[in-house]
Amino acid sequence: MTLTIYGDGKSGNCLKVKWTAEKLAIPYRWRELDVLRSETRTPDFLALNPAGQVPLVILPDGRALAQSNAIIVHLAEGSALIPGDSYDRAKMFEWLFWEQYSHEPYVAVARFQMAYLGKPREALDRTLVERGRAALQRLEDGLEDTPFLVGHNVSLADVALVAYTRVAHEGGFDLADFPRTAAWVSRVEAALGIS
Amino acid sequence: MTLTIYGDGKSGNCLKVKWTAEKLAIPYRWRELDVLRSETRTPDFLALNPAGQVPLVILPDGRALAQSNAIIVHLAEGSALIPGDSYDRAKMFEWLFWEQYSHEPYVAVARFQMAYLGKPREALDRTLVERGRAALQRLEDGLEDTPFLVGHNVSLADVALVAYTRVAHEGGFDLADFPRTAAWVSRVEAALGIS
Repeated sequence: MTLTIYGDGKSGNCLKVKWTAEKLAIPYRWRELDVLRSETRTPDFLALNPAGQVPLVILPDGRALAQSNAIIVHLAEGSALIPGDSYDRAKMFEWLFWEQYSHEPYVAVARFQMAYLGKPREALDRTLVERGRAALQRLEDGLEDTPFLVGHNVSLADVALVAYTRVAHEGGFDLADFPRTAAWVSRVEAALGIS
Repeated sequence: MTLTIYGDGKSGNCLKVKWTAEKLAIPYRWRELDVLRSETRTPDFLALNPAGQVPLVILPDGRALAQSNAIIVHLAEGSALIPGDSYDRAKMFEWLFWEQYSHEPYVAVARFQMAYLGKPREALDRTLVERGRAALQRLEDGLEDTPFLVGHNVSLADVALVAYTRVAHEGGFDLADFPRTAAWVSRVEAALGIS
């Protein structure tokens, strides 16, 4: 059986999985579900993932796996997207956990509210905007010495962080304020073949 | 050099690191920092971790690592706390990422507001309470078939999730509503030697 990815093409979390599969030349079937139309809340999908969230993958052996970063770690095991050096690998995980706790809840949520719920920028919660900017500044600082987040090669840290950073402008953030980050976005897109 | 753990003993995120080191008999020095007294915001500490967050470890080779779950994954590499089976390991990561996104921001934050900021239960944000309960229900469902979150042995998934679940009552949640979870807390505490 082929890997099946249940995802919403508008969701950076889902695109992480698609990009990882493509970079690693893992064959997959994509099953598009529209979160806004509650297609992740149907009885059929809830039977696959009781959390009602995408991305979800069904592995070739039929077993399910959720959580975007857990999925890409699993798909990339043994590949060059996970650093071989133990400390570099730990730093990659540091970025992955940070992404879910300190970046996605602000940068992605601001974008969701503006681009998909139609909220004007001025109506966004002020703390949300401040924390989104702080996350982008943290990225900017993290790119001071190296072309990618963990050293000189693209890793899952870049896959995970680029997902919502490349569309941060849709949440009202201006990457012109974060020039190293803007250059890194282009670099990661090129490394992953994202158009 | 010995591992140094910078942590606040009131923080479940910090205790995860302590418990993992103790379970694996890794010698460490504990440096207590009081978050409430802003001891993680001093110039000395910010030089170690610009994010101003604990836990932070200084590894025996002098390099720093942040993010509780990234730290415990690094410390436990090659140990029985990380399942050897590839799918079980992926499920462990699924729980670790879920913990930081869907459990800690509600269960730990409710506890912080009540136990440390003195907020009465009634004053907690309603969404916070609902999502905290949903997280505990998700744990309860996850423990339907197995004694630990990933099969029959304690893993880092249990270490990470027990940290704030065992003190959920301090945030006004009643584990009597989640009996499998309550029994699992005792089981994990015994497995880790937590008193």
